[in-house]
Amino acid sequence: MFETAELGRKVGKKDFEAAENELRTALLEAQRALAGTRTSVVVVVSGVEGAGKGDLVNRLTAWLDPRGTTTHAFWDTTDEERERPWWWRFWRTLPRRGTIGVLFGSWYTEPIVDEALDRSEPGVFERRLREIEAFESMLAADGTLFLKVWMHLSKDAQRERWRADAAKGRAWRESPLAEEYGARYDAFLATSERAIRHTDTGRAPWYIVEAADARWRDLTVGRTLLKALQERLQGETGPSVAQTPTTLDPPGKRATVLDSVPLDRKLDRDTYKAQLDHWQTELNRLSWAANAARRSTVVVFEGWDAAGKGGAIRRITGAVDARLSQIIPVAAPTDEEAAQHYLWRFWRHVPRAGRLTIYDRSWYGRVLVERVEGFARDDEWLRAYHEINAFEGELLDHGITICKLWLHIDRDEQLRRFEERRETPWKMHKITDEDWRNRKRWKPYAAAVHDMVQHTSTARAPWTLVAANDKRYARIQVLETVCRAIAGGLGEPVAEPPVTDPA
Amino acid sequence: MFETAELGRKVGKKDFEAAENELRTALLEAQRALAGTRTSVVVVVSGVEGAGKGDLVNRLTAWLDPRGTTTHAFWDTTDEERERPWWWRFWRTLPRRGTIGVLFGSWYTEPIVDEALDRSEPGVFERRLREIEAFESMLAADGTLFLKVWMHLSKDAQRERWRADAAKGRAWRESPLAEEYGARYDAFLATSERAIRHTDTGRAPWYIVEAADARWRDLTVGRTLLKALQERLQGETGPSVAQTPTTLDPPGKRATVLDSVPLDRKLDRDTYKAQLDHWQTELNRLSWAANAARRSTVVVFEGWDAAGKGGAIRRITGAVDARLSQIIPVAAPTDEEAAQHYLWRFWRHVPRAGRLTIYDRSWYGRVLVERVEGFARDDEWLRAYHEINAFEGELLDHGITICKLWLHIDRDEQLRRFEERRETPWKMHKITDEDWRNRKRWKPYAAAVHDMVQHTSTARAPWTLVAANDKRYARIQVLETVCRAIAGGLGEPVAEPPVTDPA
Repeated sequence: MFETAELGRKVGKKDFEAAENELRTALLEAQRALAGTRTSVVVVVSGVEGAGKGDLVNRLTAWLDPRGTTTHAFWDTTDEERERPWWWRFWRTLPRRGTIGVLFGSWYTEPIVDEALDRSEPGVFERRLREIEAFESMLAADGTLFLKVWMHLSKDAQRERWRADAAKGRAWRESPLAEEYGARYDAFLATSERAIRHTDTGRAPWYIVEAADARWRDLTVGRTLLKALQERLQGETGPSVAQTPTTLDPPGKRATVLDSVPLDRKLDRDTYKAQLDHWQTELNRLSWAANAARRSTVVVFEGWDAAGKGGAIRRITGAVDARLSQIIPVAAPTDEEAAQHYLWRFWRHVPRAGRLTIYDRSWYGRVLVERVEGFARDDEWLRAYHEINAFEGELLDHGITICKLWLHIDRDEQLRRFEERRETPWKMHKITDEDWRNRKRWKPYAAAVHDMVQHTSTARAPWTLVAANDKRYARIQVLETVCRAIAGGLGEPVAEPPVTDPA
Repeated sequence: MFETAELGRKVGKKDFEAAENELRTALLEAQRALAGTRTSVVVVVSGVEGAGKGDLVNRLTAWLDPRGTTTHAFWDTTDEERERPWWWRFWRTLPRRGTIGVLFGSWYTEPIVDEALDRSEPGVFERRLREIEAFESMLAADGTLFLKVWMHLSKDAQRERWRADAAKGRAWRESPLAEEYGARYDAFLATSERAIRHTDTGRAPWYIVEAADARWRDLTVGRTLLKALQERLQGETGPSVAQTPTTLDPPGKRATVLDSVPLDRKLDRDTYKAQLDHWQTELNRLSWAANAARRSTVVVFEGWDAAGKGGAIRRITGAVDARLSQIIPVAAPTDEEAAQHYLWRFWRHVPRAGRLTIYDRSWYGRVLVERVEGFARDDEWLRAYHEINAFEGELLDHGITICKLWLHIDRDEQLRRFEERRETPWKMHKITDEDWRNRKRWKPYAAAVHDMVQHTSTARAPWTLVAANDKRYARIQVLETVCRAIAGGLGEPVAEPPVTDPA
């Protein structure tokens, strides 16, 4: 989930100033149009300690028209507040229709802090998340537009931020809680992920923002807000769609999470053979062990056309007893499947206890091809993230291990493989006009993959982005990832490979 | 909640046959129109043991076209099912688009039974309810029309049903579980109420059906299904609205829950004075005790125009120290209030600890006047039941006592009072053109009250329907109800009045 916000994206000062002028003008214009409508806008500013929540709030209030903006910082509760139900203080701060409310801290703060610091009673955190979901969805149905921003810093970036502040004599900027919170970075992040996953709904989606560079952070939030406002004002009936702002794209910088995949990794033939032998042996052993323990495994394959899914899948099935494994190829739905909710066809094939099921493409089609090609409406694919997380949650709670793989290649490599297929008689059937069409939409697909990772890569069911320009390297990475996932589910170690690092 | 289904409504054999012919034709016609659409219909048949779930399912399948209908009875789980996540078996049974699925038992059955029989782990029941809400709302967003029917029998009616079956030599009709379930009637009812309250959403509302008379029961469900189908087919964008089928109205029978109020109750002046003195003294004592315990009380007054709300409220405030009580008159919202979600204005006035707050009209305006006069859209007032239950849940969880009173008079009495007001100089200002207009809409208002009681009268915050044709009787009933509610919240007894029964 947070890997999409550790890409090192930055904006230079000059670029920022040019972009800022444009953005401010557009924001003020959108705000004027908002004033006459029934929409109220709630901007929830939250994130890792040290990510600059206060700075962002100051920037937003500088950009926006103060006559239509209110800001609230939630701090200690007052007597007045303690004497009333918990939600009372939040109702008080809601902005009126036609205006924007910027909330520094929110209904998320206390539940996350209490849970991360082990201070909440059992069950309280889950109850709050449920209440939050109901609260937001009630207001959204009434016309509130939510922009929930989670500003992320890696643990190193957090330390670096504090070090830099201290060096500049600005240690006063540090919250008195910084030390305590910093020491529990991992607990905070894990708790935050749960909160975000439970409340990342189509009606009130979360935006994870990379906060290491202040200019990138502020521009990203500003543009996301602008986009959401503009789309709402255009009278979209669906929920507001603020896409991942990959459009910012400063030249030469990493735009999506896919750009962080080390595509130059390779394996020579001998290393490959040794590794293949090792991991296939291990997979065979683990698949029997999982069967004995009645634990199922679901392996999801997604990736670019010609990224090598078929070959990788064969390296798995080649190592597992045929009685234990099954491949589900996912193409266009059958008549029977089209007459049901899109998840129905995947529920059908949920494995029995102790089996390994490989999905060659999957339910993620909803937020990939269906989104990009317009087969699903915006509100449909937007709420699908939440539905998919819930679906996978059911599988996980039942003890099923989930392993999700995106096979990544670059455009040049894809072209080389397409041409090779076109020229090789026994591969010709594998290349279709559709493949060439999809290839033209590389950028929207990459944005969709980025969003998919942001919304659905969770601690319990993470995405693995496989560097697949080299088929040998990719196959080993796939086998190793599957082995480690199964072993993790069984709570046992894997045998380590003969050479330490295949890279 | 269930009081609306204990009114003794019946249909005679001849009336039934005439109505049935008409209904069957209309259902088949609606089903033909449904076949071409993206809507699938899920009829969930549930209710008290002995209410005739099986009979109803048989009747529905006899009425419907079998080519577009599937039925499923959920029984013991199979091996296949146990090896997969809990929800798998329910996904299997979902009807295709354009068809109707009748489910005898459902995802509600096991959670309710386990909870009522104290067999579930702590927290499991709540988790299932949450999952159910998410499941239904996901399918509803995808075009599924839900008709969730809860068939109710009072405890006596349940025993009577079994006795009658046994007498006719049909003891074989009785479930082997009847005895165990019957003995735990109260636990089942309380658990069912929680399940219904949590899952009674605008998108998948519950219909509570009086099941003591089989003909009334079947006709009611059939007509509710027909109405929901017709409204969906007319292309309503909102959720399907199947109103309470009060339209059935066999002559002379009780149509709504209001018809069960004993309007002939009266008090003579002397009894009234003694009772008034007693209950006002008691209320004064209890209000100080509640203040000392820091427990707040919220009293909600609703009722017909001229039902005597003002007089009853004065009898409360007259007994309570002015520092402890506050009256919130609820008329049209202010500008500031209209610029917010409709519940915002009520959250504003949530009392501080230890206070008594009287709402002269309330948030129930959403499902009364706003519904009847069309100020709220159907989807808005329909989802308001769930929102109101959640709002009151927040107050209750905070330790606030809620006492909800509907002051009921009949139409003749209202006319008498209107005319009296018109002719009395110091009462003239109390009667407006609007009152006369509302009077003309007696029936839709009565239906709205019936639905309100059905959806929002809960064990923790029940509605009291006050017989108010006699003002003296009404005031005493109000005072007594408020006293008992406060005392209940404090966990202490009330002093009983000088005469045993004021009736």
